[in-house]
Amino acid sequence: MTERPVDDYKTSRKGKRVKAIETKRKSQPLRAPETGSALQNLSLSHGKRVRLWRLLYGSGPANGTLLVLPLDQGLEHGPADFFPNPEALDPDFQFRLAVEGNYSAIALGVGLAEKYMREYAGRVPLILKLNGKTNIPDDEEAVSPLAADVEDAVRLGADAVGYTLYVGTPAQPSDFAQYLRVRDEARRLGMPLIVWAYPRGTAIDAKGGKDSFYAVDYAARTASELGADMVKVNFPHPEKRTDVPEPYRAEFSAQQAIDAVVRSANRTLLLVSGGERAGDEAMLEKARESMEAGATGLIFGRNVWQRSRDESLRFVAALQDILTKYPSA
Amino acid sequence: MTERPVDDYKTSRKGKRVKAIETKRKSQPLRAPETGSALQNLSLSHGKRVRLWRLLYGSGPANGTLLVLPLDQGLEHGPADFFPNPEALDPDFQFRLAVEGNYSAIALGVGLAEKYMREYAGRVPLILKLNGKTNIPDDEEAVSPLAADVEDAVRLGADAVGYTLYVGTPAQPSDFAQYLRVRDEARRLGMPLIVWAYPRGTAIDAKGGKDSFYAVDYAARTASELGADMVKVNFPHPEKRTDVPEPYRAEFSAQQAIDAVVRSANRTLLLVSGGERAGDEAMLEKARESMEAGATGLIFGRNVWQRSRDESLRFVAALQDILTKYPSA
Amino acid sequence: MTERPVDDYKTSRKGKRVKAIETKRKSQPLRAPETGSALQNLSLSHGKRVRLWRLLYGSGPANGTLLVLPLDQGLEHGPADFFPNPEALDPDFQFRLAVEGNYSAIALGVGLAEKYMREYAGRVPLILKLNGKTNIPDDEEAVSPLAADVEDAVRLGADAVGYTLYVGTPAQPSDFAQYLRVRDEARRLGMPLIVWAYPRGTAIDAKGGKDSFYAVDYAARTASELGADMVKVNFPHPEKRTDVPEPYRAEFSAQQAIDAVVRSANRTLLLVSGGERAGDEAMLEKARESMEAGATGLIFGRNVWQRSRDESLRFVAALQDILTKYPSA
Amino acid sequence: MTERPVDDYKTSRKGKRVKAIETKRKSQPLRAPETGSALQNLSLSHGKRVRLWRLLYGSGPANGTLLVLPLDQGLEHGPADFFPNPEALDPDFQFRLAVEGNYSAIALGVGLAEKYMREYAGRVPLILKLNGKTNIPDDEEAVSPLAADVEDAVRLGADAVGYTLYVGTPAQPSDFAQYLRVRDEARRLGMPLIVWAYPRGTAIDAKGGKDSFYAVDYAARTASELGADMVKVNFPHPEKRTDVPEPYRAEFSAQQAIDAVVRSANRTLLLVSGGERAGDEAMLEKARESMEAGATGLIFGRNVWQRSRDESLRFVAALQDILTKYPSA
Amino acid sequence: MTERPVDDYKTSRKGKRVKAIETKRKSQPLRAPETGSALQNLSLSHGKRVRLWRLLYGSGPANGTLLVLPLDQGLEHGPADFFPNPEALDPDFQFRLAVEGNYSAIALGVGLAEKYMREYAGRVPLILKLNGKTNIPDDEEAVSPLAADVEDAVRLGADAVGYTLYVGTPAQPSDFAQYLRVRDEARRLGMPLIVWAYPRGTAIDAKGGKDSFYAVDYAARTASELGADMVKVNFPHPEKRTDVPEPYRAEFSAQQAIDAVVRSANRTLLLVSGGERAGDEAMLEKARESMEAGATGLIFGRNVWQRSRDESLRFVAALQDILTKYPSA
Repeated sequence: MTERPVDDYKTSRKGKRVKAIETKRKSQPLRAPETGSALQNLSLSHGKRVRLWRLLYGSGPANGTLLVLPLDQGLEHGPADFFPNPEALDPDFQFRLAVEGNYSAIALGVGLAEKYMREYAGRVPLILKLNGKTNIPDDEEAVSPLAADVEDAVRLGADAVGYTLYVGTPAQPSDFAQYLRVRDEARRLGMPLIVWAYPRGTAIDAKGGKDSFYAVDYAARTASELGADMVKVNFPHPEKRTDVPEPYRAEFSAQQAIDAVVRSANRTLLLVSGGERAGDEAMLEKARESMEAGATGLIFGRNVWQRSRDESLRFVAALQDILTKYPSA
Repeated sequence: MTERPVDDYKTSRKGKRVKAIETKRKSQPLRAPETGSALQNLSLSHGKRVRLWRLLYGSGPANGTLLVLPLDQGLEHGPADFFPNPEALDPDFQFRLAVEGNYSAIALGVGLAEKYMREYAGRVPLILKLNGKTNIPDDEEAVSPLAADVEDAVRLGADAVGYTLYVGTPAQPSDFAQYLRVRDEARRLGMPLIVWAYPRGTAIDAKGGKDSFYAVDYAARTASELGADMVKVNFPHPEKRTDVPEPYRAEFSAQQAIDAVVRSANRTLLLVSGGERAGDEAMLEKARESMEAGATGLIFGRNVWQRSRDESLRFVAALQDILTKYPSA
Repeated sequence: MTERPVDDYKTSRKGKRVKAIETKRKSQPLRAPETGSALQNLSLSHGKRVRLWRLLYGSGPANGTLLVLPLDQGLEHGPADFFPNPEALDPDFQFRLAVEGNYSAIALGVGLAEKYMREYAGRVPLILKLNGKTNIPDDEEAVSPLAADVEDAVRLGADAVGYTLYVGTPAQPSDFAQYLRVRDEARRLGMPLIVWAYPRGTAIDAKGGKDSFYAVDYAARTASELGADMVKVNFPHPEKRTDVPEPYRAEFSAQQAIDAVVRSANRTLLLVSGGERAGDEAMLEKARESMEAGATGLIFGRNVWQRSRDESLRFVAALQDILTKYPSA
Repeated sequence: MTERPVDDYKTSRKGKRVKAIETKRKSQPLRAPETGSALQNLSLSHGKRVRLWRLLYGSGPANGTLLVLPLDQGLEHGPADFFPNPEALDPDFQFRLAVEGNYSAIALGVGLAEKYMREYAGRVPLILKLNGKTNIPDDEEAVSPLAADVEDAVRLGADAVGYTLYVGTPAQPSDFAQYLRVRDEARRLGMPLIVWAYPRGTAIDAKGGKDSFYAVDYAARTASELGADMVKVNFPHPEKRTDVPEPYRAEFSAQQAIDAVVRSANRTLLLVSGGERAGDEAMLEKARESMEAGATGLIFGRNVWQRSRDESLRFVAALQDILTKYPSA
Repeated sequence: MTERPVDDYKTSRKGKRVKAIETKRKSQPLRAPETGSALQNLSLSHGKRVRLWRLLYGSGPANGTLLVLPLDQGLEHGPADFFPNPEALDPDFQFRLAVEGNYSAIALGVGLAEKYMREYAGRVPLILKLNGKTNIPDDEEAVSPLAADVEDAVRLGADAVGYTLYVGTPAQPSDFAQYLRVRDEARRLGMPLIVWAYPRGTAIDAKGGKDSFYAVDYAARTASELGADMVKVNFPHPEKRTDVPEPYRAEFSAQQAIDAVVRSANRTLLLVSGGERAGDEAMLEKARESMEAGATGLIFGRNVWQRSRDESLRFVAALQDILTKYPSA
């Protein structure tokens, strides 16, 4: 009996009420969707917006683009990466380079941040890389364990945190679980979250490898779906078509591929990584294509600092030239 | 000695007291059981009832049926799902479609919800999909890790949460453990819980595959036993009889199968999924059979938006036509 | 030096003091041990005693014996169990049967409890089954994950909780860990804990299987050692002697086996399960032997409800007849 | 500049200050190290000291030695252990034996403690065995999961807790983690912690088995290093030399071996276990050798109660005779 | 519209403001980087600085170098390590040696610390080793579980904690997770954290073994990147070139290798371990090379105490001689 009144009410008056709501809903025309990923168009909390503003407009190119210097190779690959330029073994080299090269930020882990920030505090923003691992064991079931948390980043005055997500790893349940904790803490503290979206693991190897267009495209979308504010990807290689799933077996140009990846990231700001050192002109071409596609910026480490200080600065200047051509309001 | 009085009391007077209780118990006749799953008949907390009412009567068909637009394919299958209709790569396409197609709700993860809700807030209810995974590794021991929690759903103004349970996975202990946390939080916050009940894993493969009548029927009952408020299943294929356990090796029509599945879900509202894109007429037939069986609604994604906007809307109209024929008070 | 006084004290006076304590200890004669498991003899907190009293004397046979109707087969075996009597697919069938058959309690999981208790609240006590799993993957390393907790049982007005412990599973560390949490919470909330003690897993298979006298006897003792208030076992099969360890390879009658199992459970109340449906007379004989051995009651599901309502009630009446012959004060 | 003063200070004055500290440090002569493990010499919190005093001087032999009756075999080995003396299947048998045999304590798990303590409370101290497992699966990666915690021990009025550590198990990370929690809680609550140090697992099997001198010696030291207050070991078998690592391949007498084990345990009180039932004279000889080596006491179960009550008491009397010869102040 | 003002503001005035910030940033010249790892140059909290000062200047050589006596071999290798000098089986031997040999600190686990600190409290600082394991199972997936936490260290008056990190183990996710907890707690409590950085596991074995230059160099950098305050490494063996990755296949002298390792540790203080006992002169040569390379000190156990007390002290004196030649302000 107690449900009856509700029932009566519904049949007698609800129809009209619902109709009214529907009419209202439809009478307010939908705005044209926002295009691009300019900061002002993004849905962000105040804390994230303040910190992203500092990275995009208060440092480095300061035109809405980003140039980030990563220094996690000592953990990820070991000191071997510093043999080509022994000076670079001292983290002071990269910090100095970040300041003199007018980088937007330097990205590194808690150990180096704590040991080297004193001299550089305020001169270059910090992106605290929260997780990492050695490359000693293979990557078949790769997962990158946390070595710091978002509160460390707040304590150190960082303007963003970085999290490596191994997209497609058979260990994705534990990777996602760890990521969820980070995303939640970043939300609570208003800290922008940058996902290093790296395809990795046996299944990726069996489907064309970690830098195919398929893998990079999927990685970009995954970061967006999981709530990253920014995603870092490697430049896609559409020419690697063996074993990749359809529809990635068709022919795509490099520009087409990076265009698609940027669109897959949709409203997630996108950084393109330099990766292993390669020829300068090829690297600059990739940088140009990335920015042309709508990427927000570049994250170049080894390609810069695996050479002497002067040569490093010269290469950085070339990157800066590109970035100045792609301002974003 | 201290137990003695109780003992005396029991032998002298308890018999009568218990008799009296029993008489009372039996003198109150049992009501005829409630039939169907109409909202008013279900045992629900106020919070869940309010939110389910909004989905069933305050949006979409608004006649007690549901039409849900899912957008988790970018994570679950990758951007490849959007190649047939490149416009659909931009989540704005699906949001706009949900509003213009008069869907009851859009179901997606925390990343897209946070990035795209601003323009559509209030115009279409949100079902926040809490867990998900890439399809890069195989599904032998599938488990879908959480990427958000029920508090995220509350924060985002959602009217329900979705949880993918891989029924029959060898990893069911960790899946159930994760599910328990979600169910408990959903209960605490009055948030309806929709279980995507997907048979998956090596054991399911060995027993006839993930879309047999056996598998779907078991999945529906599992969701109900575990306390889901609503369950989403794929349409059962009773013709897939190889390797399925008895008594599912007998011949059943599609209608018989979906009828049984709805009864197995008992007082758990049931949504039937469109799944991969197939012929329109076949899809509409499945939709009709589902509603005829007593399903509460339909959840159709790829079958709708893997075509142009106008064609999408045309197909949605056909689904709406069906739903209007199955109002539920 | 600081220890010295203690030392002096000890040599000078401690001897006498300890002697006095010992004299006192021995001068108080030990009472004859309590025999049987009557409620009044058991060490129980008030909360557990109240709830067990309701099950033993306030419901069903109400003579200190128990008749429990289990309804977890939909999760444990799938809807296939309901094909012999399709009416039984609707949980309302079993709830009604529990009331009309004068059962002591109905045992089921949180989903069905929440969905069906409204009509039956108070008419039949609830035993909330806390964990469960599908039988889709094999049982080699079986563990039954929690789907509810003891607070759910309190919230739903249950009079006991059930926990399935897979005795002998290679996964016993995680099973015990989960069980510990439940036992502790049950203690805190005064909720009787019934352990479904099921031998299971590769090692059990290699040692004679899950229903040998060895396996069932070990299971009963395990539940007692781990602090269960009541234990549910399957009827032991002493004739299954292949591969069982000594001394179970000797010949034992069914009565000898169930006698031993009841003694192994010592002060833990014991329920004997009907298991798969078998011939009525054989089932009733097992029931008689169990009660003769000192079991507290019976838990019969499929043997009852895998037939029409009237036949179900007839079989229940036969069980009730047996129970009335074994009152326990 | 801010560091300068410290620097100046150091060169001008620090040297002298440090010298002064060093002079002071060395001018206080080191006391001769305490020998033996008498309670008064041990570093213990008040709570642990009170409870150990009750075991060593307030119960049983009451001369600083211990005689402990273990009753965890029903869980560890199953009811089979009670077939030689069916009376012993009822835990009341062992409780009564503990009182009448003047044992220092009875050691058992939470289930039997809760069910049987009422009659024996205060008459014999309780050592609550916190973890345990069935012997149904093999011990290749043995770990003994918790079935109770230290707060249960406090609640039940126990004077110590027991923890089985499977020394050398490949699962040592999870074993140590569980142990750490127990040690910490025992410290917080002033509860003495007795480690059942059992070599176990594939690696132990490959290195000479679980009762070699090597294995037992390592187990005793492990318990000491991990902070046990007391350790229970099996009597070492120096004659088992196959596969044991150097230097245990040399010849050692039984007395030499148990002497070494007691020294390896250093300030950790040591109990020697009777283990499986063997010839009485051999058992008593082991007991004598153990006490001669400096053990604190004996823990004998099956060797005692796998015979009738009178025979049990006679054997206990022989053990008591030995213990009275090794008083410890 | 709401975004507009920000936009206007940016185009009209932001350019100038950013310029001003940049000018300021660049007009403040960068100081020359601090060289070496002297305490005063390091970024440390007050608590860590106080405790490190006590180790470096308030104890032992007291000239900014360290000489540490480790006593974790009883757990890590078993009592076998004490057979060469049976006196050393009693931990009192090492404590006394630490005081008489003027060590900077003794490093051991919670069990020995609690049992032996009473006599030596204040006479020699304590480094509490938090984790450890037996060497009974192999090291293929080595991880060293915690047996104590940083609060134990505070409670025991320790001046640092030690954590064994198995660099390169396939179990690095669980190792890092455990480490993170320790690092965080150490930070909170101002407790210096010394990482025993040990390359270990199948992947290290496949890449040249645990003491190659490659492995030790990577280990030193890993500890620094993860935020250790001090790192303990074994002396590198550059002559082990088989299977090591490039560029470690080139020829390096021992001095070159240890120089590189110290630089890889950058601002992390570095201790060189003596390891297994070897020839005295070779050990002293390694010690000299280490200090020459810029190491902070030495951690020598077995090389010292696997001989009589007098011989031990003589060898310690030789080590002290070396350390006095490398004072650090």
